[in-house]
Amino acid sequence: MEIPVILNPEARGSLQSQLFEQLRSLILKGKLSPGTMVPATRSLSRQLGVSRNTVLLSYDRLIAEGYLETRRAVGTFVSKSLPEETLRIKSEADHAIEVRRRQALRQPLPFRGRAHRIVNPNRSKLSCDFWVGRPDPNSFPIKTWRRLMNKHLVQAGTNLTEYRDPAGNISLRQAIADRMGPARGISVTPEQVIIVTGCQEALNIVARLLIGTGAPAVVENPSYQGAANVFESYGADLRPIPVDERGLDVSKLPEEQVRVAYVTPSHQYPVGSTLPLDRRLKLLEWAWRVGAYIIEDDYDSDFRYQGSPLTALRGLDERGCVIYSATFSKAIGAGLRLGYLIVPKELVRHAVTVKTLLNNGNAWLEQAVLAEFLASGKFDTHVRRIRKLYLSRRDCLIGELRRHFGNVKVSGVNGGMHILWHLPPGFPPACELQQMALEAGVGIYCMDDGGAREFPGSDYGVSTIMLGYSSVTEEAIRLGIARIADMLGEWQEIPLHRTAIPESTVSLAGFSN
Amino acid sequence: MEIPVILNPEARGSLQSQLFEQLRSLILKGKLSPGTMVPATRSLSRQLGVSRNTVLLSYDRLIAEGYLETRRAVGTFVSKSLPEETLRIKSEADHAIEVRRRQALRQPLPFRGRAHRIVNPNRSKLSCDFWVGRPDPNSFPIKTWRRLMNKHLVQAGTNLTEYRDPAGNISLRQAIADRMGPARGISVTPEQVIIVTGCQEALNIVARLLIGTGAPAVVENPSYQGAANVFESYGADLRPIPVDERGLDVSKLPEEQVRVAYVTPSHQYPVGSTLPLDRRLKLLEWAWRVGAYIIEDDYDSDFRYQGSPLTALRGLDERGCVIYSATFSKAIGAGLRLGYLIVPKELVRHAVTVKTLLNNGNAWLEQAVLAEFLASGKFDTHVRRIRKLYLSRRDCLIGELRRHFGNVKVSGVNGGMHILWHLPPGFPPACELQQMALEAGVGIYCMDDGGAREFPGSDYGVSTIMLGYSSVTEEAIRLGIARIADMLGEWQEIPLHRTAIPESTVSLAGFSN
Repeated sequence: MEIPVILNPEARGSLQSQLFEQLRSLILKGKLSPGTMVPATRSLSRQLGVSRNTVLLSYDRLIAEGYLETRRAVGTFVSKSLPEETLRIKSEADHAIEVRRRQALRQPLPFRGRAHRIVNPNRSKLSCDFWVGRPDPNSFPIKTWRRLMNKHLVQAGTNLTEYRDPAGNISLRQAIADRMGPARGISVTPEQVIIVTGCQEALNIVARLLIGTGAPAVVENPSYQGAANVFESYGADLRPIPVDERGLDVSKLPEEQVRVAYVTPSHQYPVGSTLPLDRRLKLLEWAWRVGAYIIEDDYDSDFRYQGSPLTALRGLDERGCVIYSATFSKAIGAGLRLGYLIVPKELVRHAVTVKTLLNNGNAWLEQAVLAEFLASGKFDTHVRRIRKLYLSRRDCLIGELRRHFGNVKVSGVNGGMHILWHLPPGFPPACELQQMALEAGVGIYCMDDGGAREFPGSDYGVSTIMLGYSSVTEEAIRLGIARIADMLGEWQEIPLHRTAIPESTVSLAGFSN
Repeated sequence: MEIPVILNPEARGSLQSQLFEQLRSLILKGKLSPGTMVPATRSLSRQLGVSRNTVLLSYDRLIAEGYLETRRAVGTFVSKSLPEETLRIKSEADHAIEVRRRQALRQPLPFRGRAHRIVNPNRSKLSCDFWVGRPDPNSFPIKTWRRLMNKHLVQAGTNLTEYRDPAGNISLRQAIADRMGPARGISVTPEQVIIVTGCQEALNIVARLLIGTGAPAVVENPSYQGAANVFESYGADLRPIPVDERGLDVSKLPEEQVRVAYVTPSHQYPVGSTLPLDRRLKLLEWAWRVGAYIIEDDYDSDFRYQGSPLTALRGLDERGCVIYSATFSKAIGAGLRLGYLIVPKELVRHAVTVKTLLNNGNAWLEQAVLAEFLASGKFDTHVRRIRKLYLSRRDCLIGELRRHFGNVKVSGVNGGMHILWHLPPGFPPACELQQMALEAGVGIYCMDDGGAREFPGSDYGVSTIMLGYSSVTEEAIRLGIARIADMLGEWQEIPLHRTAIPESTVSLAGFSN
């Protein structure tokens, strides 16, 4: 018997593996049916013009995998133990019918979650892009990072090969705990610090711990999309509470047993307001009263341009109501995928269990490097340096907006990496303006595309544009805002105030947090 | 008024921040009540013997945070807007009552999951430790890794600072897709490959996609603890199917609508058997029939000591029933926290959504380095090298067991990083033997502590010891097994076969997969 096999010495894969694959395929498609005797190795090697060893090795593998079996002194056969049904050859039409049958049989996916868009779809397509929450790429502390990486790689020992504490490197947890007091007024032990892949993972850990189907969960309105999506994906019943120029309106908090409240008191996402002390204390009092845990997402608190950094909600909490979450994605870079969660003592064990269940912890080397970066004080130096840079970019952005559009109403200017531009009457709706700007090569974002989620009752969305400035050079800022002004000028209906206002006199109208 | 503040120039923190903290604490504890006038900066600076600027800056921060307010030409006061209730001083007893009240009010945590122990509790305490699933630490490709890290760090551009595709670096996904054909007989596009933090995370993604409360899920009996725990934590109703010396007994699969079946066909965890072709085909046929997805966990398939690597279940699946999961934790190191998931085309979008929701993707640099390590062929060279090393360690271990205990029954020897030692009658139960060995300074593990989960119907546990050999030197292996023999000799009841059997004649009794 001649077997329909063609070997190609030019093709990818050795002759032996080509032979194996082709024989296997013939068997699986039923062209060589169970019980059929296959040619002796010597005759097949002659037929194909390859060495006998090539055929022997292919047969060995087919025997090892159970496709062929040998009967002593008789020969080699296609295995009889293979289920005939599976081997029956299928036409394309049969296959299509089967696929439809299976789709009918399979239950629909129970998963109903959706994810927010974290990656900028316009990346590198625009001459000026105000995408939110991006650190300046040229400020990454590359030299220090490289030196520390090399140092820790050499000293790694078993740390690269073995599993380590899923809660994170103890050196990093210690360095974070040490920094929390001076930086945020928070006093914690390293055991309460759990290293995570970022705020997003922190939210999953909290949600898995606290949220069951139908559990009421307070979020801000508007809120951070990533948080709302995570809670919903675990079945939470969201209770959006309005945000005004002083942050969350605590007088509207529901007097019911709420499981969890997600807040961004340092720099409300997306509006940018800072929650004042009286509201902070009322929020804590409420959480205590209804038995809720508060998740304080302190995503960009390293950037505060007016006054000292505020004491975190967690620093005011003496009753263990607050779970604190922060990230290094904003101050160093999102490519590290490192953040942390600080939990009340009674939740430590459970939170570490969830982290273990999720992924057994984060990569060791990045944590070791970050620990030394923090403990050596280099992180604080780095933050001070980029804070200055971002401040001048913020000033440039507000100045350019005022130069082209007059006394603009902006918010969220006291800290963070983005501002909100509240469009005056007569401007196109935010989503339309975003589209127009995109066509002019400038990325500006309406709330929905900027990672915010609006619930009924919020009216920011239609007239608000989010402008991230931290990764945009002043030159690009000037270019970008000028292009938007040109574009709107052509669009006719906008009354432009093209009076040049000196930057030093910029004052902020409307709400100014 | 003199304020009870004492500054200590020796203490940690600047004088300014000490003053801020102490005043803040006095206000929060109600010792300075709302409306109280605080001393003028000049008089307080005299009282404390510090510069007036120190006091001014502290007051500024207290004003910024809302603790103090100024009335023009009158003075500075404790804010009246602070909620009195919060500020009322609490005694220790009051606090204890409140904590109990809150605990009563708070609903119990809905989370019911548990995590398996991935970190060896005996780490570095033992002279010989057969903890399972550890790569040899001295074989980590440190030089190449260091060179590649430095190279990619320098070329990183915006990759370290910005969010990237949550599904992973495309270069790594391409390198993995390219390798799957030759290595495992799997043909996939890079889009179907999703980078994850390890098999554990892969299981979470699949569980979130497919498992709702009460969903039937097939697992092997005994099974990998990590998988059983994840499925249970999402509410699955586990259906354990017995494992014999040929792996999963496919004749016992339930004829009901099963959502998902978790299997380890290459090297069953923990038993070590390899699922033969006829069972693989029957398993696929069953999955198709009942509408189930199969999760093939190929955790240590890079280590196959007899014959070629087997075609993965995923490689036999022409109907899109198999989700394939693998990790680099075993072949390179668990400290990298990198693995991958290969999903059928119709699940790609959903799986990436879950990965995004979970943590927005993995760190960029480790992925970039691994991509080049794979694409350059260095990974295959590395695997070939350590495969040889592990093989000789395996042989040494089996040889030593036979030297001390005669014709031992072992299983799982054809591949992987651990074997099962089936204890003969007369030996202490496995968990007791583990304890005895621990006291003698040797780590050996019963199934439960070795990451396996036994369900009713399995009788491996009581008489089976798991021995991981991949990270143990031959010297340590000889020492460890000799110690166990000594220990058992003293324990009296064991009939020891202390005949020295030459290693070359070692043959494997019992089941030998």
